[in-house]
Amino acid sequence: MDIKYSVVKLKGSSTEEIKDSVSVEEPLEMNLKYKVDGKWETDQLSITMRTPGHDEDLVRGFLFNERVVEQINHIDNIELVGDPVGQYKLKNKAVATINNSENIDIDKIKRNFLTNSSCGVCGKTSLDSLEIIKKDKILRSTPKINHEIIMKSPLMLRQNQSEFAKTGGIHASGLFDQKGNVIALREDVGRHNALDKLIGLVLKENLLDNNSQFLTCSGRLNFDLVQKALMANIGVLVGVGAPTSLAVDLAKKFNMTLVGFVKDKSFNIYSNNERIIIKN
Amino acid sequence: MDIKYSVVKLKGSSTEEIKDSVSVEEPLEMNLKYKVDGKWETDQLSITMRTPGHDEDLVRGFLFNERVVEQINHIDNIELVGDPVGQYKLKNKAVATINNSENIDIDKIKRNFLTNSSCGVCGKTSLDSLEIIKKDKILRSTPKINHEIIMKSPLMLRQNQSEFAKTGGIHASGLFDQKGNVIALREDVGRHNALDKLIGLVLKENLLDNNSQFLTCSGRLNFDLVQKALMANIGVLVGVGAPTSLAVDLAKKFNMTLVGFVKDKSFNIYSNNERIIIKN
Repeated sequence: MDIKYSVVKLKGSSTEEIKDSVSVEEPLEMNLKYKVDGKWETDQLSITMRTPGHDEDLVRGFLFNERVVEQINHIDNIELVGDPVGQYKLKNKAVATINNSENIDIDKIKRNFLTNSSCGVCGKTSLDSLEIIKKDKILRSTPKINHEIIMKSPLMLRQNQSEFAKTGGIHASGLFDQKGNVIALREDVGRHNALDKLIGLVLKENLLDNNSQFLTCSGRLNFDLVQKALMANIGVLVGVGAPTSLAVDLAKKFNMTLVGFVKDKSFNIYSNNERIIIKN
Repeated sequence: MDIKYSVVKLKGSSTEEIKDSVSVEEPLEMNLKYKVDGKWETDQLSITMRTPGHDEDLVRGFLFNERVVEQINHIDNIELVGDPVGQYKLKNKAVATINNSENIDIDKIKRNFLTNSSCGVCGKTSLDSLEIIKKDKILRSTPKINHEIIMKSPLMLRQNQSEFAKTGGIHASGLFDQKGNVIALREDVGRHNALDKLIGLVLKENLLDNNSQFLTCSGRLNFDLVQKALMANIGVLVGVGAPTSLAVDLAKKFNMTLVGFVKDKSFNIYSNNERIIIKN
C-alpha cells in the first residue's frame, strides 16, 4: 500500500514539483481473546507500525514467531474489528481468538509478553524474557542450496515485490525453493513485520518444507529476524545486508546457516556452510 | 564495538576463509529509580538491543525522547550496574535515578510506558499511547540550510563513522551546523538507538542550537525517528533512504522540514521546504 505526496525534487540546483509514492505506515493494535474460568476476556497485546494489508497473516505469524501460541491451530480466527479510522479508513485493531486458553500461560504472557513488541526484542522488560526458543529448536533440516540460487534470490525478491519499485522504502521477506522459485513473499515497512506476514501465510497455507527451502530478507540481519526464522525451523537464512553479532551467535547455537551481504556474484557464510553447495 | 568472526567468503564460485568484522548487538535493560512516599523504588522500563558503548547517552536520550522525563535535569544520574555478563563481559543493566518523582506520573508511565519499547512505537499496547508529542512541539525554529550542505552530509556522516567501514552494518545519526560541520555523531545497530544516543549526548553537553542545525540519519525515515527528532525541536531531518507516510504526516503536522533520498546531487523535500536554501 502506498500513497502519493507532492514533493519538491532537487537535482543539482534545479527543482521540480513531483508526485512521489510513499509506503504507508500505520499502527496495528493486536489483541488476544481467550477464556478464563469459562468467560471470554480480551487483552491488548502489542502495537506494531505496519504497512496495511495481509494483517491476518501478520498477526498469525507474530503470535507463532513470538511463541504466544505453540501451534498455529490454537488460533481459532483473527478478525479486524472496530470502525475504519484515519485518513485511509482502515481497521487498525485485530483480535485473535485462542482456543486452548487452558493450555497457555496467560499470566506469563501478560508478564513477559504484554511488555513485548513487534520487534520481538525491544519492549521486553527483563533480560530473561529474551530467549524464547526451546532447545528442541536446534535445526536438523537438510536443505542443500546451490550457491547460484542464493546469489540470484535478492533479484528475484526485488522483481516479485509489488511496492519497492514505487516507493524505494519497503522491506521484503521471501521463501524460495531449491530451484530459486519464489514460494511466497511479503512486504512491509518493518523487516520483522514482513517476516511475520510471510510465516503467517506459509503456516496457514501449509507451504513450509524445511528440507528444501530457504529464506531471503532485504536489509540487515539482527537477533530478531534469526529468532523468528528459527521458530519456523528455517535452515538457511539469507540477508542482503550485514548480520549483527547476536544474529551470528544465535544461528551458530541453533545450527542455522546464516548468509549475509548477498550480491550477484558474492556472499558471506557466517555459520553452518554445509547446506550451501558450491558448484564450479 | 565490533567483533571478528571466521567467515566463508564466496566470490563467483571460489571460496576463501576470512575474518569479518561484525557490529556487536547486545541487550541493554533500562531501569527507572524513583521515590514513592519517601521510599526508593526501582522498576524495569524496557530492553533495547544496542551496540555497547555510550550507554548513558542512550538511556538519557531515550528517557527524554520518549517523554519519561520532560527535562533532562530531572535525571540525577545514570549508572551501569550488576556484574559484567556474556562473552564480552559487559554491564547490560542501566539504572536512571529520577529526582522529581513527585512530578512524574509513575502510574501512567507504568501503564503506557512499561509496555513501550525502544522503537518508541512497537510494544505500546494502546493506540492512544502512541502520540506523545504535545501541541507546543510545533516547530518555530528557523535554520536555513544550503542545499549543497545537505547533499554532502551523508558522506560526512560516513567519513566520521568509526565502525561502518569495518562492519557495513551499523546506523548513524549526525547533528550538523549550517556549514556542514559535524557537531556530534553516534552509531548503533538500531537506527532509533543511534538517534537516542545522539540526543542524549547533545542535551548533556548543551550542544543543541535549533536555529542553525540539522540532523542526518542513515537509512529510512519512519514515524519513530521523526517523533524523536521533534522531541528535541530539530527543524530539519534528513534521511539517506525513503520516508514512510506517517513520517511525512507527522513532519507536516509539526512544521518540520523532512528530506529523504539524499544523495550527492539530489534529494526530495517532503515538507516545509522554506528551510532549504537552493543556490544556483
